[in-house]
Amino acid sequence: MYTSRVNFRSRQAQLQRSLEASRLDALLVTHLPNIRYLCGFTGSAAALLIAEDNCVFFSDGRYGEQSREEVQSARIVIARKAPLLAAAEWLRLNRSTSGSSTLGIEAEHLTVAERKRLFKAVSSKTRIREAPPLVEQLRMVKDPDEIEKVRAAVNLGASLFARLLRAIRPGVKETQAAAEFEYAARSGGAEAMSFPTIIAAGKRSALPHARASEAKIPRLGFVVCDFGVILAGYCSDMTRTLHVGRPRRQARRLYEAVLQAQLAAIAAVRPGVRVREVDAAARKLLQKHGFGRYFTHSTGHGVGLEIHEAPKVAAGGSEILKPGMIITIEPGAYLAGRYGVRIEDMVVVTKHGCEVLTPTPKELVEI
Amino acid sequence: MYTSRVNFRSRQAQLQRSLEASRLDALLVTHLPNIRYLCGFTGSAAALLIAEDNCVFFSDGRYGEQSREEVQSARIVIARKAPLLAAAEWLRLNRSTSGSSTLGIEAEHLTVAERKRLFKAVSSKTRIREAPPLVEQLRMVKDPDEIEKVRAAVNLGASLFARLLRAIRPGVKETQAAAEFEYAARSGGAEAMSFPTIIAAGKRSALPHARASEAKIPRLGFVVCDFGVILAGYCSDMTRTLHVGRPRRQARRLYEAVLQAQLAAIAAVRPGVRVREVDAAARKLLQKHGFGRYFTHSTGHGVGLEIHEAPKVAAGGSEILKPGMIITIEPGAYLAGRYGVRIEDMVVVTKHGCEVLTPTPKELVEI
Repeated sequence: MYTSRVNFRSRQAQLQRSLEASRLDALLVTHLPNIRYLCGFTGSAAALLIAEDNCVFFSDGRYGEQSREEVQSARIVIARKAPLLAAAEWLRLNRSTSGSSTLGIEAEHLTVAERKRLFKAVSSKTRIREAPPLVEQLRMVKDPDEIEKVRAAVNLGASLFARLLRAIRPGVKETQAAAEFEYAARSGGAEAMSFPTIIAAGKRSALPHARASEAKIPRLGFVVCDFGVILAGYCSDMTRTLHVGRPRRQARRLYEAVLQAQLAAIAAVRPGVRVREVDAAARKLLQKHGFGRYFTHSTGHGVGLEIHEAPKVAAGGSEILKPGMIITIEPGAYLAGRYGVRIEDMVVVTKHGCEVLTPTPKELVEI
Repeated sequence: MYTSRVNFRSRQAQLQRSLEASRLDALLVTHLPNIRYLCGFTGSAAALLIAEDNCVFFSDGRYGEQSREEVQSARIVIARKAPLLAAAEWLRLNRSTSGSSTLGIEAEHLTVAERKRLFKAVSSKTRIREAPPLVEQLRMVKDPDEIEKVRAAVNLGASLFARLLRAIRPGVKETQAAAEFEYAARSGGAEAMSFPTIIAAGKRSALPHARASEAKIPRLGFVVCDFGVILAGYCSDMTRTLHVGRPRRQARRLYEAVLQAQLAAIAAVRPGVRVREVDAAARKLLQKHGFGRYFTHSTGHGVGLEIHEAPKVAAGGSEILKPGMIITIEPGAYLAGRYGVRIEDMVVVTKHGCEVLTPTPKELVEI
C-alpha cells in the first residue's frame, strides 16, 4: 500500500534534472533518509547511484530480500562489500569507456574516511565533487502524499496526549510517564518514537533538551512534554507544557509570553517569507515581555522522513518558505534553576499562509 | 551517582598519552559517544578538544545548564555558534602564539562538509590530520565500572524476555508484542531501546534486520526477537528465536545448527584470539550442517555506549581479543521466503576465556 502511492520515478527524474544544473554526471546518495525518499528502501545499509540515465541501488547480504521487496525504480545490486564500495566498483566496471566523469557526493553526510575509501576505489577518471544538498532541497517541499502521511503521524501523536495527561501526577517518575505514552504510541501503530520522549518536570523544565529521567514529578511546577511518533516513515513533533498545581503569577506570565510568541510566529508563516522573519516574530514577542534572553534555541525546523530536516527556522536563516514545506514552531523560555516553558506545533505552508497540523489546544492545563 | 564512579580524568590521560604517539598536538572529538566517554556529557550538540595539557568542552545555549551538571574534568565553553566552530575559534584565539600545530580529527565521524568548515575556521598554522580511532580503541576495553553497567543493562533486557514470551501469540501484531516489551523496559527504568525492537514472525524471520511490522504472528513458524535496552548509557543486545506451534523436522534442524554455531563461537572467545577466528568457528559449524550460505552477516560486534562499536567480529577481522572487551555472538541462518533463526548473547572477554553475560536459556521454546 505504502509504495504504490509514491512516485519514486518522478522524484528521481527531478533529481536527474538538477544533476545537469550542478554539472554532475552522477550523484552518490549515501544518506539513508535520502535513499528512502528516492527508492523506498528502509534498511540501514545502502547507497544509491543516480546518473542522468539510470539509478542503481546497492546493499549487502542482510538486506537482499528486503531490498527486492522495497526498492522501486532502481536496479538492485546486493554485494559482499560495503554499499559505498560496491557503488565505486560498479562505476569502475560500467563507466570505464565513457571517459572522465564527475561524481557528486553528499558532503554533509559522507564522512572524511568514507570519502577517502571512495576515492581509492573509483577509477582515476572519476572526479569526486561535493554536491549541494540536492535531495534535501527536493525533500523540503512535501508532495500531497507526504503531507497526508505527516498529518497521520501528527494526529496519532496528538491523540495520545490525553494518555500522557493522565500519566502525569506528582510522585510519578518522568520515565514512567514517557513509558505510558510510548506504549500507547506503539499500540496505536507507531513504528517508533521520532526522538527520545522529553518529560521534564519542575526545575528540569529549564533544560530544553532533557530526556525523561528517573526524577519524580513534583507537587508544584511546569512539566514540559515534547514527543513524537513515526508512522509510515514520517515523523511528528509536538510540545505542550503543563502545570502541576496552581501556577504562580510569574509562571503564568512566562507561559502567556511563550504562547503569544508561538502565535506570532505562526502568523508570520506564508510563502515568500524568509525563515528568519518567522524566528524574529517569536523573538520579538519574548523580548517585549522581558524573556528574550531566555529563548536560547531557534524557533523551529523542517520535519518529514527525519525529525530535523531543512529548513532550519533560525535567526540567520535565509531560506524562503514555499507551499508544501512542513516546519515546527516551537519557541521556549528557560530560567535556569527555576523552570521553563515550550509550546510547539507543526504547520504546513499553504498557498496563502499556513495550516496548523497539530490539533491540540494550547491554553495552560493545570493538573 | 553515575558520574562519581567514573574516572574521566584517567580516560582523558590515557588519550593524551596516545596523542603523542600519533604525533598530534590535539584531538578534536566530535563523535557524541566518544565525548560522553571522555567527560560525561549526554546531550546532542558538543565538541571536545583534548590537548596534551588541557581539555575543553564546547556546546550551545540549549545545553548550558546540562553541561554544567554533567561535564567532568573539562573546561566548559557555551557558544552561540556550532560547537565545531566554537572549538576552531578557541584554538585560533588560544594557540595563536605557539607556532604551528597538528590537530587530529575523527575521520570516521566528521563529515566532508564539517571538515571544510573547520579548515576555514582554524588558523593557517593549524594542520588538520585524520587521526586513527583513538577513543574507540580505548572504549573497546571496558573498565570494571563499565562492565557492571553493561551487565545491569543485559540483566534488565533479559528479565523482560518473559514478558515478551507472554505477548507473542498467533494473531498478535509484531508491533504489539514490541510495544509490550518496550513498555516493560521503560517501566523498568530503561532510558531507551538500544535499537528498534525486531519481532519478525513466520516468513519475516528470514529478514535479518526486519523491524516489528503490522504483520500478525502466524499459527506456525519461527519468531525472531532481537531487542535491547539502554541503562545508564550502556546498551544491551540479545536475540532469541521462538517457535509458534510444533516445529517441523527441518526447522528444528536449522535451529540446532544455529545453536551449535553460537556455542562454538562462544567457545572460541579468549584473549589473544583474532575476531575472525571466532567468526570462523560459527561459520564452520553452519557449513557442516549445510547452512553456510544462509549465514549472511557477521558473527558479532562490540557493545557499550553504542549498540554497534568496535570490534566487529567478522570474517576479515584482525582485531585481537583482550580481557574487558564485550561482544555479541549472534550467528543466524535465513532461508529467503521460508524462515530464519538467530541466537545472540553478549559475552565479556575474561583472563582465560569469556563470561556469557546473557542469562537466558537457549533451548528452542515452543509457544
